[in-house]
Amino acid sequence: MDKIEKNLLEQVAGLHEVPAGAYNIRSNGKMAGRNTTAHIDIVTKEDKQGIDIIIKPGTKKESVHIPVILSESGYQEMVYNDFYIGEDCDVTIIAGCGIHNCGVDTSKHDGIHTFYIGKNSNVRYIEKHYGEGDGNGTNIMNPMTVVHCEENAHMEMETTQIKGIDSTNRITKGDLKAGASLEVHEKIMTHGKQYARTEFEVDLNGENCSTNVISRSVARDDSKQEFFSKINGNTACAGHSECDAIIMDRSCVTASPQLTANHIDASLIHEAAIGKIAGEQLIKLMTLGLTEAEAEQQIISGFLK
Amino acid sequence: MDKIEKNLLEQVAGLHEVPAGAYNIRSNGKMAGRNTTAHIDIVTKEDKQGIDIIIKPGTKKESVHIPVILSESGYQEMVYNDFYIGEDCDVTIIAGCGIHNCGVDTSKHDGIHTFYIGKNSNVRYIEKHYGEGDGNGTNIMNPMTVVHCEENAHMEMETTQIKGIDSTNRITKGDLKAGASLEVHEKIMTHGKQYARTEFEVDLNGENCSTNVISRSVARDDSKQEFFSKINGNTACAGHSECDAIIMDRSCVTASPQLTANHIDASLIHEAAIGKIAGEQLIKLMTLGLTEAEAEQQIISGFLK
Repeated sequence: MDKIEKNLLEQVAGLHEVPAGAYNIRSNGKMAGRNTTAHIDIVTKEDKQGIDIIIKPGTKKESVHIPVILSESGYQEMVYNDFYIGEDCDVTIIAGCGIHNCGVDTSKHDGIHTFYIGKNSNVRYIEKHYGEGDGNGTNIMNPMTVVHCEENAHMEMETTQIKGIDSTNRITKGDLKAGASLEVHEKIMTHGKQYARTEFEVDLNGENCSTNVISRSVARDDSKQEFFSKINGNTACAGHSECDAIIMDRSCVTASPQLTANHIDASLIHEAAIGKIAGEQLIKLMTLGLTEAEAEQQIISGFLK
Repeated sequence: MDKIEKNLLEQVAGLHEVPAGAYNIRSNGKMAGRNTTAHIDIVTKEDKQGIDIIIKPGTKKESVHIPVILSESGYQEMVYNDFYIGEDCDVTIIAGCGIHNCGVDTSKHDGIHTFYIGKNSNVRYIEKHYGEGDGNGTNIMNPMTVVHCEENAHMEMETTQIKGIDSTNRITKGDLKAGASLEVHEKIMTHGKQYARTEFEVDLNGENCSTNVISRSVARDDSKQEFFSKINGNTACAGHSECDAIIMDRSCVTASPQLTANHIDASLIHEAAIGKIAGEQLIKLMTLGLTEAEAEQQIISGFLK
């Protein structure tokens, strides 16, 4: 693995060396490393690109790293990863995709991650998307995440796209059985002429299940962002979505969160706010000695933290 | 005018007798009364159904009543009313439609109201929709309101549909120039198998213009409601939308408010909440001696007030 690939791995998975626990590293469409454990198996799919991650019931405090990196300009792929998580598990899954594109072609990673989370299991899922290059080739990433939660299963999802992705269409879907919960924290920053579209759809099907979708985004330069969410309350359940965006320069942001209550005991709330950085906040930091650019940077970092 | 027609007039326009000021009463497609004043002219359209309401510049503290009533079961109409409001006016316009349907046919009123509001003018627009009958014929109302606000024009719109409309598709569109504002308060209650769809779209085009869209609704029985709003901030402007719904019985409510900021100085916010009447509120009123039904009624009245 060369320096470029090592840097991508660090960016998307925080990896400086081979991770502890189970892992599968995919580099330019090939397996660049894999480890399984007594409780976590990883199997290459035979009918299409991708892997099955099989986590035995009762697996606790283990982690799986499955980073994907693309360093050949113009490489394009469509990958299917399925996660079968048994009952009573407590695991952390770190995915992510990094593209290094120093050519003129379009590099593209489309990934569909499907989670089958067993009863009473807790899953923390972290996903980072990152791109770099000299700016001539286009970097595209279209991640789709589908989450099926059995009774009392809990999924906490953190997704981050801070830099270097020219176009993305991010789709997350969930369906929840009784007592299950899905918590999503999304952070996006776009710059240049980038375009980012985010879509969430959560079906609250089981009694007393709940979801909380929080999206924070910053749009700089001439970039464009669209946020769509749908929360469907089909039973006694609670749903909340929140979408806050900071616009800068000549950027454009649309927020369109939809709530549907199909049951009298569904309780649904959403909030959204779009605006620029408040003038007072900037002035306050500037009186402390920061330049305007530094003050902006500090506010944005705090907002996306 | 018979007793049924008089009752409809009272329901939709609060009229017990002929109103003061300008008015035009439309009953089953025919003019049932008209009065113009020195400042307000009402002219029958020649190319299609409807009237032009022309309000001279500088007209202050005057009102126009333009109620529409349908008492013949099965009567259907499409009416175009255009309002030309000069500069520096301060007027109140009371519209509304009442249907009495005691037959088996579908009675239907489609109305398109277009407002051209001159600079520095204030318009208060009140619109009520009401239906009654023995329940065999269907009552349909599809009101569309289009508001063009010149510089510093202000429109305050109150729309109410409490009872008796089986199906409605309510569309309100506005475009605002510099310093203009559009304030909308909508109240809807549906019952039985009724369906109500509401759509707002406001383009904030002029510097420092603003809009505030507030919708409060109650859905009872098996009724269905859909709320859509779009606020487009195209300049330095402020937009707020709020959609609160109480669901009861087996009803279903969707809220889908969209915000788009196309300019760094656009500040846009929305909030929505859907849920049933809080149990504590009911219990509190019941400890004061009200029955459950009375307590519910009191909470709903307060919510829609």
